[in-house]
Amino acid sequence: MMRTRPLKVALLGCGVVGSEVARIMTTHADDLAARIGAPVELAGVAVRRPDKVREGIPAELITTDATALVKRGDIDVVVEVIGGIEPARSLITTAFEHGASVVSANKALLAQDGAGLHAIAEEQNKDLYYEAAVAGAIPLVRPLRESLAGDKVNRVLGIVNGTTNFILDKMDSTGAGYQEALDEATALGYAEADPTADVEGFDAAAKAAILAGIAFHTRVRLDDVYREGMTEVTAADFASARGMGCTIKLLAICERAADGESVTARVHPAMIPLTHPLASVRGAYNAVFVESDAAGQLMFYGPGAGGAPTASAVLGDLVAVCRNRLSGATGPGDSAYTRLPVSPMGEVVTRYHISLDVADKPGVLAQVATVFAEHGVSIDTVRQQGKDGEASLVVVTHHASDASLNGTVEALRSLDTVRGVASIMRVEGE
Amino acid sequence: MMRTRPLKVALLGCGVVGSEVARIMTTHADDLAARIGAPVELAGVAVRRPDKVREGIPAELITTDATALVKRGDIDVVVEVIGGIEPARSLITTAFEHGASVVSANKALLAQDGAGLHAIAEEQNKDLYYEAAVAGAIPLVRPLRESLAGDKVNRVLGIVNGTTNFILDKMDSTGAGYQEALDEATALGYAEADPTADVEGFDAAAKAAILAGIAFHTRVRLDDVYREGMTEVTAADFASARGMGCTIKLLAICERAADGESVTARVHPAMIPLTHPLASVRGAYNAVFVESDAAGQLMFYGPGAGGAPTASAVLGDLVAVCRNRLSGATGPGDSAYTRLPVSPMGEVVTRYHISLDVADKPGVLAQVATVFAEHGVSIDTVRQQGKDGEASLVVVTHHASDASLNGTVEALRSLDTVRGVASIMRVEGE
Repeated sequence: MMRTRPLKVALLGCGVVGSEVARIMTTHADDLAARIGAPVELAGVAVRRPDKVREGIPAELITTDATALVKRGDIDVVVEVIGGIEPARSLITTAFEHGASVVSANKALLAQDGAGLHAIAEEQNKDLYYEAAVAGAIPLVRPLRESLAGDKVNRVLGIVNGTTNFILDKMDSTGAGYQEALDEATALGYAEADPTADVEGFDAAAKAAILAGIAFHTRVRLDDVYREGMTEVTAADFASARGMGCTIKLLAICERAADGESVTARVHPAMIPLTHPLASVRGAYNAVFVESDAAGQLMFYGPGAGGAPTASAVLGDLVAVCRNRLSGATGPGDSAYTRLPVSPMGEVVTRYHISLDVADKPGVLAQVATVFAEHGVSIDTVRQQGKDGEASLVVVTHHASDASLNGTVEALRSLDTVRGVASIMRVEGE
Repeated sequence: MMRTRPLKVALLGCGVVGSEVARIMTTHADDLAARIGAPVELAGVAVRRPDKVREGIPAELITTDATALVKRGDIDVVVEVIGGIEPARSLITTAFEHGASVVSANKALLAQDGAGLHAIAEEQNKDLYYEAAVAGAIPLVRPLRESLAGDKVNRVLGIVNGTTNFILDKMDSTGAGYQEALDEATALGYAEADPTADVEGFDAAAKAAILAGIAFHTRVRLDDVYREGMTEVTAADFASARGMGCTIKLLAICERAADGESVTARVHPAMIPLTHPLASVRGAYNAVFVESDAAGQLMFYGPGAGGAPTASAVLGDLVAVCRNRLSGATGPGDSAYTRLPVSPMGEVVTRYHISLDVADKPGVLAQVATVFAEHGVSIDTVRQQGKDGEASLVVVTHHASDASLNGTVEALRSLDTVRGVASIMRVEGE
């Protein structure tokens, strides 16, 4: 029972992702029609540079007036792949108000104002889908929102930025320092000329906010996410990690507190055991590890970026939204009913690996151990190494709050016998 | 906007999975109601042994008359977790005819008669969901049916049986033989007293049939799946695999032919490179690797069996089906429009690792190589090892059809200088 009037799609943006979306819509038109139950056609493409040659897209579909396009009134689905906050937010809002549903790949916007967009979508009884906003082609939003809808997710632990995983993997496998690995990532096109958004964890933090919200059925804003970049990770850190049977990954970690009454979301480099499934995620790949009450441990792995992979996620959403239009229904929308508060970083409980440069004389270890004890931080192991009158102490703690650990480190710094704190790294995934 | 009249669920079967479904429905009732938009209640539980104590399930809900339960007419969703072909098929059919949608965890039934069940569901305009039928808690059916609905899947490569993965992992890590590893699996409860369905690949074949159908939007019946068990895998095979930088897994492999005009589905042990993400899937875990045009390589990992994990998948489906009931829609149903034929095993093209016991005299290698050439099977590498007047030859081929390989092996067996064919194993995942 194929409907013959086609569903009309407006494409906002025709860069790396948008051009792939347009290409697949054309080349796979028959498959899409069969899967949707009606043909789907590109009704307009809003771009900034109309003169650029765009293979396979009829010139008459190209417009620079995105607002007029979303206001047309005959558009069924607006696909937004321009990114950034404005004009994306206004265009999506206008699209909803003029009867369209929306598929977006815009992680920044969803992380900053997911609540607002969901509210308008609900008010207008339209769909807002955004699988492509988190970890590219990897199905994550749908599994968390739908497959695990009858379960209780307790933790999400993810490698959600390909650039930084490429750099860290390179450091791990070659012993290179951060700068050298970054240079290679840049040369190979894995890192942008200005890599700040990736290496400082901003990109991962936006994804953490979205994932935490979906996983815990609550609202986590970008500002709620604690963020530490990975530019300070050294070859020495990797050597320490290996000594512990670990590697280092930049992780986005979303957790439900033990009492279930609050959540946390954070992005920082961390040691994880080599036996953890995330440890073997190589190159620019992404993977997200999910722990839930009933399902246990799940992992989702794949390419986290790129034109074609992101287009795959966009098109999966497009098929779902088109199907919903035909049946007059909407998919599972915003679900933030738990209203769980987001706790500050100080309340996060995890384990720590701390490297200290200390004076090589008797009693130092006792002094250091006393400081840990005074702050309620229990020590798991200590390794002491002498080198030319100086020594290094590597302390791995049991679980402790970030606040206690910070207090401990501050007190350690004030000890005469502690020359410096070489590194502090969290230990996750155990 | 919470509807107050509850949706009514009939549970068929209250064993390991069913009791977990009932438990979660009770303990997580508020969460389920919030996610569905209406409360959901257990309206009846059909069991074989009504006298068994079932904690948390009111005695008045228990019945031995499953048929009467699905015929009640006020049931919104029937959850079928009894397994097997009959009476499951008749009960599901009756449920559809009496107005219910169905969530099933029944891989045998779906693999054997998915088409028939889908046809009745569509006729009655009801949902048939079965995420739990393949790889337990791992979201696979939904990602393949929905997330990848705008993409073209070319290959599915999966570890979909936990028992056999436990046994093979044990053989790999300890050097144990098959029987020893099986005994341990049995002692630990990973293998059943009669392990045939697992070790002979019947369980995996049913899942392969379901996965191939969904992935390629066609119909693959259980009889279409080529099947080889893993009882013949030896410690020597693992040693050979390691020599090639590989390990051995029992794989379910569903492929679209290079020309796109047919598909194949098969289950057999195979060598895969240690660098392949499936190689590091340990113990009883399952994982499914998916290759598609746009998304590239994805992997889904998690527990493939067990009461709670399977219940998680059932409940995710239950939430979706309940939501669909409320909105008067149905989810994406059967999609077999491509009608791609299933090619026989002989047409499958892959690589092979062949161990031959040969006479240790000049000219044997030339003889053997000639046989391969005559059958159009190109050799990648040969390794020759002498031992006490005998020698072994290990040949790894380039890609060749199964039919050509079988012809080659038959001709090799008839050579005087070939004492025996010690093992033939396919090499996948490259």
